[in-house]
Amino acid sequence: MTTFSFLDDYSEGAHPDILSALTESNYVQQAPYGEDTYSIDATNRIKARLGAQFNGAIHYVASGTMANIVSISSCLRPHEAVIAVSSGHIVMREAGAIEATGHKLITVPAVDGKLTPENIEVALSSNAHFPHMAKPRLIYISNATETGTVYTLAELREISALAKQRGLILFLDGARLAAALASGKNDATLADIAALVDIFWIGGTKVGALLGEAIVVCNPALKDNFAFHVKQRGGMLAKGRLLGIQFQALFGVKHLFLENAKHANAMAAKLAAGIVGRGYVLDAETATNQVFPILPDSVISALKAYFAFYVWAKSDNDRSVIRLVTSWATDERQIDAFLARLDHV
Amino acid sequence: MTTFSFLDDYSEGAHPDILSALTESNYVQQAPYGEDTYSIDATNRIKARLGAQFNGAIHYVASGTMANIVSISSCLRPHEAVIAVSSGHIVMREAGAIEATGHKLITVPAVDGKLTPENIEVALSSNAHFPHMAKPRLIYISNATETGTVYTLAELREISALAKQRGLILFLDGARLAAALASGKNDATLADIAALVDIFWIGGTKVGALLGEAIVVCNPALKDNFAFHVKQRGGMLAKGRLLGIQFQALFGVKHLFLENAKHANAMAAKLAAGIVGRGYVLDAETATNQVFPILPDSVISALKAYFAFYVWAKSDNDRSVIRLVTSWATDERQIDAFLARLDHV
Amino acid sequence: MTTFSFLDDYSEGAHPDILSALTESNYVQQAPYGEDTYSIDATNRIKARLGAQFNGAIHYVASGTMANIVSISSCLRPHEAVIAVSSGHIVMREAGAIEATGHKLITVPAVDGKLTPENIEVALSSNAHFPHMAKPRLIYISNATETGTVYTLAELREISALAKQRGLILFLDGARLAAALASGKNDATLADIAALVDIFWIGGTKVGALLGEAIVVCNPALKDNFAFHVKQRGGMLAKGRLLGIQFQALFGVKHLFLENAKHANAMAAKLAAGIVGRGYVLDAETATNQVFPILPDSVISALKAYFAFYVWAKSDNDRSVIRLVTSWATDERQIDAFLARLDHV
Amino acid sequence: MTTFSFLDDYSEGAHPDILSALTESNYVQQAPYGEDTYSIDATNRIKARLGAQFNGAIHYVASGTMANIVSISSCLRPHEAVIAVSSGHIVMREAGAIEATGHKLITVPAVDGKLTPENIEVALSSNAHFPHMAKPRLIYISNATETGTVYTLAELREISALAKQRGLILFLDGARLAAALASGKNDATLADIAALVDIFWIGGTKVGALLGEAIVVCNPALKDNFAFHVKQRGGMLAKGRLLGIQFQALFGVKHLFLENAKHANAMAAKLAAGIVGRGYVLDAETATNQVFPILPDSVISALKAYFAFYVWAKSDNDRSVIRLVTSWATDERQIDAFLARLDHV
Repeated sequence: MTTFSFLDDYSEGAHPDILSALTESNYVQQAPYGEDTYSIDATNRIKARLGAQFNGAIHYVASGTMANIVSISSCLRPHEAVIAVSSGHIVMREAGAIEATGHKLITVPAVDGKLTPENIEVALSSNAHFPHMAKPRLIYISNATETGTVYTLAELREISALAKQRGLILFLDGARLAAALASGKNDATLADIAALVDIFWIGGTKVGALLGEAIVVCNPALKDNFAFHVKQRGGMLAKGRLLGIQFQALFGVKHLFLENAKHANAMAAKLAAGIVGRGYVLDAETATNQVFPILPDSVISALKAYFAFYVWAKSDNDRSVIRLVTSWATDERQIDAFLARLDHV
Repeated sequence: MTTFSFLDDYSEGAHPDILSALTESNYVQQAPYGEDTYSIDATNRIKARLGAQFNGAIHYVASGTMANIVSISSCLRPHEAVIAVSSGHIVMREAGAIEATGHKLITVPAVDGKLTPENIEVALSSNAHFPHMAKPRLIYISNATETGTVYTLAELREISALAKQRGLILFLDGARLAAALASGKNDATLADIAALVDIFWIGGTKVGALLGEAIVVCNPALKDNFAFHVKQRGGMLAKGRLLGIQFQALFGVKHLFLENAKHANAMAAKLAAGIVGRGYVLDAETATNQVFPILPDSVISALKAYFAFYVWAKSDNDRSVIRLVTSWATDERQIDAFLARLDHV
Repeated sequence: MTTFSFLDDYSEGAHPDILSALTESNYVQQAPYGEDTYSIDATNRIKARLGAQFNGAIHYVASGTMANIVSISSCLRPHEAVIAVSSGHIVMREAGAIEATGHKLITVPAVDGKLTPENIEVALSSNAHFPHMAKPRLIYISNATETGTVYTLAELREISALAKQRGLILFLDGARLAAALASGKNDATLADIAALVDIFWIGGTKVGALLGEAIVVCNPALKDNFAFHVKQRGGMLAKGRLLGIQFQALFGVKHLFLENAKHANAMAAKLAAGIVGRGYVLDAETATNQVFPILPDSVISALKAYFAFYVWAKSDNDRSVIRLVTSWATDERQIDAFLARLDHV
Repeated sequence: MTTFSFLDDYSEGAHPDILSALTESNYVQQAPYGEDTYSIDATNRIKARLGAQFNGAIHYVASGTMANIVSISSCLRPHEAVIAVSSGHIVMREAGAIEATGHKLITVPAVDGKLTPENIEVALSSNAHFPHMAKPRLIYISNATETGTVYTLAELREISALAKQRGLILFLDGARLAAALASGKNDATLADIAALVDIFWIGGTKVGALLGEAIVVCNPALKDNFAFHVKQRGGMLAKGRLLGIQFQALFGVKHLFLENAKHANAMAAKLAAGIVGRGYVLDAETATNQVFPILPDSVISALKAYFAFYVWAKSDNDRSVIRLVTSWATDERQIDAFLARLDHV
């Protein structure tokens, strides 16, 4: 018997509309390296959601690590450093990719998964002995965060204001931006984000694309020569159409980008409610598509026969936190099945 | 009226078998980051062609530049340099990607697009004033070469022997390896190559994949910790299945990898023969899927109304070399149409 | 009136024996780039103190940051990371120099300024999700530490054993190694250190040289091609004699290296005893040439008219910790003067 | 019997005035890291020779390779490349130091050791396929050149004008700038150079300092945060006074900087004239402190018993080019001795 996986939101292939679009366009000849008509159209569709004042550029790359590498290294001079929470993806899950481009990461503790203005100030004041310390220059945040929490519009505005006041670049890693925008906790639009940050990226991989992330360079001062960096880091695909077609589909009439995320979040909410309804406690509120219930270890063992998921942390002697991730592809019947199993273990 | 493109071998999407395989597997849940069953199977299929003595590893990445970055930077210590022909792809078409990982490129002139033992010796003897010069350590060749020529088995053996004798790593960029193996000029097998080089990669993008290259680490001493480098440079896809599925299809029963290349080469051969049959001269023999005819500028202008291609170089006052590239997707009727146009211009 | 400086141990020029040696040798022609007879002799003098089993190499560079850059970057492959205490010099005082060579720093809290086996284990276990995390590979310690504390031989042995067991490289930054070896808290010899670490450096700048640090590569596996790294990072002086002559003097009959440090430590001990004798408390025991008294802010203000020093941290509402650094050049009368001022403020 | 060395211009220690200045200042306490009063005064002395319009900054570093690393890497973004002659010092004698900071070197042939506007145009036009090629952004020249030739003011003006027109940064490596300025072929002043280039450095090592080069940042846009780069690359000395004191001496009343070079050039001129007077031919005109006579191999062998020098290249079957370098320290009697030996071999 195979288990159903709640391990992550990239266990399946692509949303069927994406496969259809790839098939339909397959024999149309196109210019390479992102200059195809699909990429151009995808860019126009995204720009339509970024607000009238948007005067930046959009570039597509194959992976989230690539998006972070290119975004950060294209902005910074060698002596400039990045401020991030110590649980940040670039800190803990990218094998030193940012340092490999030469830049120091300055870390501060996360508060509910997030970077706060107070902690940014701490990073600045404890890294001010110049020129003996690298100069803090870029603020890295992700939305949703590593633990699935979401920045409110007010929080983003505060950080943006601080960044401007201190001459810092604000960069948002949007690997799960769709999940954030589709969250009940969210009150920001894509246009808000574009107006508040200097550069961010819109994750496709975790919301139903085969692969692909769209880097949005909002600050016009950062957009010159951007394509060189994509190329130099190995992020430019010969068949750039593959990325363009997918973002066309995600940002088409159906707005799959948001709809896919809504489905994932709804599945997580149902899972969370069902778990709580059965008397268990969550380690953190469920804001997006990640659920962190605390379960007895015996229950966890029994569930493992039917479902795949990560055991996140020990909670106490005989209980642990597990992580359940839903996605655009999660079948609601699997949620029901999980909850039914909970009743019988 | 649209023109038909002979600009490159990546103007279309993917071979239809690849799209079918993606569609069929779409909802099967898989482990991420290349640990899916498709990638494992693709690796087994490729290994079956590498010879019994193969004791290396295979890793999939999204682009050719990424394959070069990871292959080269994982092998070298900071003071070590690369020997390449001055027309090499890493020298002229990757935006300084290798230097961006910290390594010097030592260039020598190409002979028929190729690196020769004599020129490797020149590179070594003119870069021997240690420690004031970077230490030559890795030989970079591509097969087929930038100009579509092919290394013979004897040539590969000579370079391999020299590399072993001098303690150099031999690396082969296989962006168009299929075109080389399918060439009438070729007498080497994939197993020969695996036995002669330390590391090489098998290009998928230019032979019918949406994207994807398979790095084959032949020398066991180079395979430890290889995945870290793929991850750190941003080359590891969350949905690694996308690469595995495609290489499964390329190396399946039909052996699309070779068949697609044979078609491309046959189309080029037909184009070349037709052009020569019409009294024109080629700037270089057609060994793979690139044809370099010398045509009057007036003819070139007339052809441009119907076909897209690059004007490669001026030949004399009123003639130029053009480059025509065929692919797995080239419709033979377009070859006929091109030759027919030649009759009427 | 000028103030006397207790700011650091590099406020003066060089020990007079060094100036004499430079003057005497001035017109003797020598080979450049460290191949002069002085450097060779200095190396022999140092090796004489490293134990009979020493089978490594010694290289001289101009600065401590250079010594750290070359030592660390020559040892590591791109995906490998460094474990250090969060107060480490490479973490907080070298402007991101190590990250600029591409390597991640993994930091853990210091215990009495030092790295402990327990904290190394924490760094290893929290950085083990491979290949998504950079691989911990090199342990960075400094002796004396940033706060002037000293590793005991037992502590060094424990860390060395752990490094060997875990396949880690142990590197010791010896900017103030003389101060450590001359400390009453020390029970290790230079030969002990050479036997326990893979690579370390002997600081000259802070013990009476104009400049210069001697990198000692103990592990023979790390010594090949080392000079390339010194050259490539800009650390090789044309007149390498300047470094060789100074280390000859430091490791000559008088053993200035140790004698200069003994003087500095003795001056610090006298200062510490005098301060404690006047009823004040120290923030940390005085093991080497740094004294950290806690003084009322009013006293600090009054002292500032006569002496220069850093105010290190607030202690409570009206008291602060100051840092007083002594050196080979500290005139004992200035210690007396400082203590006399303390009596009158 | 020892031989007299014409191998290079850094075989001796320092000009005696420099040793005196070091000795006199030895016990004066100073601020570290280049903020000492000597460095400030040296900067003022140099600025006095840079022209009234100079609005840049001066930084001191320990070696020429360091000066090149810091100057180039502080100016460039990651995708930007350097144009240099293929015989350039950064190309052939710095172990890949510039590539180690991530930047590509684009090389063109030298004309009389120099970069020409024509060759710069060639570099630009053959590196214009953006973003697939690194972007040429900085022009590297050295004066005197690797072969001892000197740029005329007209040549510098032409290159400077081209740089401005094309948006390129002009950088001059002045390892032997004193020799150039003291040359009979020279018609440029230090102020001319400061007005024409964006950044350059004034070599101290080869004109009588123990070590030390002064980087002059002329273009105000390049001077911000410069000290971070010096620190990060390991180029900042704790006892920055050591560099300041030496440049004070070089740019003092005696103007040792120029006088030392004049002596070296005069010795080379005498050597050249004597060699030519004895019927031998020079491979190149002697413009600075390097002489390249063509001598019979038998003569060369005989001379080697008395003098050390490099055999530069084979000239024909039985003759070779040798390189003779003079310096501030060359004793005129050694010139006479060399010429006398020529009479007797």
